[in-house]
Amino acid sequence: MFWTKAGRLLLLLLVLALAGRVQARPGDPLPSWVDGPTKRAIIGFVEAVSTPGSPRFVPPAERIATFDNDGTLWAEQHFYVQGLFAVDRVRELAPANPQWGEQEPFATLLGGDAKAALAGGEAAISTIVTATHAGLTTEAFDQVVRTWISTARHPQTGRLYTEMVYQPMLELLAYLHQRAFTTFVVSGGGVDFMRPWVERTYGIPPERVIGSSIQTRFELRDGQPVLVRLPQMKVLNDGAVKPVSIQHHIGRRPIAAFGNSDGDLAMLQWTMAGPGERFALLVHHTDGEREWAYDRSSGVGRLERALDEARARGWTVVDMRRDWLVVFPLP
Amino acid sequence: MFWTKAGRLLLLLLVLALAGRVQARPGDPLPSWVDGPTKRAIIGFVEAVSTPGSPRFVPPAERIATFDNDGTLWAEQHFYVQGLFAVDRVRELAPANPQWGEQEPFATLLGGDAKAALAGGEAAISTIVTATHAGLTTEAFDQVVRTWISTARHPQTGRLYTEMVYQPMLELLAYLHQRAFTTFVVSGGGVDFMRPWVERTYGIPPERVIGSSIQTRFELRDGQPVLVRLPQMKVLNDGAVKPVSIQHHIGRRPIAAFGNSDGDLAMLQWTMAGPGERFALLVHHTDGEREWAYDRSSGVGRLERALDEARARGWTVVDMRRDWLVVFPLP
Repeated sequence: MFWTKAGRLLLLLLVLALAGRVQARPGDPLPSWVDGPTKRAIIGFVEAVSTPGSPRFVPPAERIATFDNDGTLWAEQHFYVQGLFAVDRVRELAPANPQWGEQEPFATLLGGDAKAALAGGEAAISTIVTATHAGLTTEAFDQVVRTWISTARHPQTGRLYTEMVYQPMLELLAYLHQRAFTTFVVSGGGVDFMRPWVERTYGIPPERVIGSSIQTRFELRDGQPVLVRLPQMKVLNDGAVKPVSIQHHIGRRPIAAFGNSDGDLAMLQWTMAGPGERFALLVHHTDGEREWAYDRSSGVGRLERALDEARARGWTVVDMRRDWLVVFPLP
Repeated sequence: MFWTKAGRLLLLLLVLALAGRVQARPGDPLPSWVDGPTKRAIIGFVEAVSTPGSPRFVPPAERIATFDNDGTLWAEQHFYVQGLFAVDRVRELAPANPQWGEQEPFATLLGGDAKAALAGGEAAISTIVTATHAGLTTEAFDQVVRTWISTARHPQTGRLYTEMVYQPMLELLAYLHQRAFTTFVVSGGGVDFMRPWVERTYGIPPERVIGSSIQTRFELRDGQPVLVRLPQMKVLNDGAVKPVSIQHHIGRRPIAAFGNSDGDLAMLQWTMAGPGERFALLVHHTDGEREWAYDRSSGVGRLERALDEARARGWTVVDMRRDWLVVFPLP
């Protein structure tokens, strides 16, 4: 009992010390980042392009920065959050769809093995996404997501998923906003799955969220206009599609891009190939204690080609274990 | 000779008087609008939703306003500007495409009859658009548009097309921006045809322009990433597609929408069906002297169902001849 109390006290002191350390230097825009080459590279770039009179100054309108979401802004292990949402939706909708008990990939999913169910790749994902994300209006789906995201918890940490965002990246977003950057989320995740919580969590409004999507149709129901979500993929926003979506939505090439996997490589290449000042950053998941350590052989967030290219071209690579004082926000 | 000088002087005095009239009342956000019910409806709405403490106050993040372009922000007679651009492109590319001399709709177009060439509707438009807007990188196309828009002139007025925007609508945009609205162009026109000039002309950045589009593909050419425009339509952003695009790009329902034709009806319906404060406005082209008078029977910008619905529902309808002191900006 005494030891437990002492343990708790020790933990409290550690937290306070850490909080002190985190907030030690007034005016530091990135208190959760270790002072070192990574932090210096970020601050050097941001200051150079946003300080009036700087020879590397970039006008505010051109300060476009794009961020991947899964594995870059929030955790993606052991499985993409939206995948876990889809599993919960399948369970919720199963009583009304008894045929799923003998239909793949639903049967495997209902048996509890999400990874195996989704091993079928794009076809399996598409089947599950359209079955669980379609057939209702955009407003009804928005409500479904809001309810889920405010109650579902990560199976290992017990945290809400919006509490499994990366504190150092939140600071980076706030720093960029303060420096008049226009930030966008450019994710493989569903745009309508992200929008209900992204504004509150990242300070990025819905119109600056780009993601995968399904077809929707405008209908008048008893004279009332609705948008109905259809069981058909529209955009799978990953890999080479990311620069295409960036052009489609933003119409201006970013000057900074942030990702963590091979699915972000094209976005980083597109960003870095423009003229003038550029910045590319990869989050490398190296911390098996505070988070998860994975890269080349991971089924989720595989990082191989992008890591090689980052090293060859001198892009900034975050070593999560060494560069981040804190991973998740303090509770 | 004397008369000509006197005539010029008279014109100058008129212009000055008009300018005086236009700028007569300091603090008037809409000096080119006649004081009357239309102007009062606009100002009443904007003040109510943007004045802190107002019972009808709407937070800035939700102050989304969408604008059609052709016929709402700039002139569209006797033909859509982008159609005239396509005709010029066909002429420019014709020497490299000798087969067009015997191929429709190119043959008719090269013969000088754009309207007849495009009478084939969507199929003809799609053929011409893909032939004239595809086959090059996004950056090369951007340059083509920039060159054309800064040199091509309206066949009747001799003005640049960016000088054939509506002065009262420019004032309305500036007023909304000043009142912390986030404005979007939501046009049937090509998004990549609009973006090169919209920011300078309307104060709306590229990321807030939504339009029709063709497919593009990300490619590495000699290791350099490019986006190549493909001869395939992606979105024809008109009618019932406008609310779908608004949801896709903005993810938030507008609280105000501005259009001029049946192609804008679904956008206005979608906007007005939301809860809380709403505003819908149609520009009715009633001025055959200063501009063009057209509505129910026009091939371009046909206004029939939307006009009936606006009247039935009490939406604001601009009578261009009576409500606008000035149509185009003074030279």
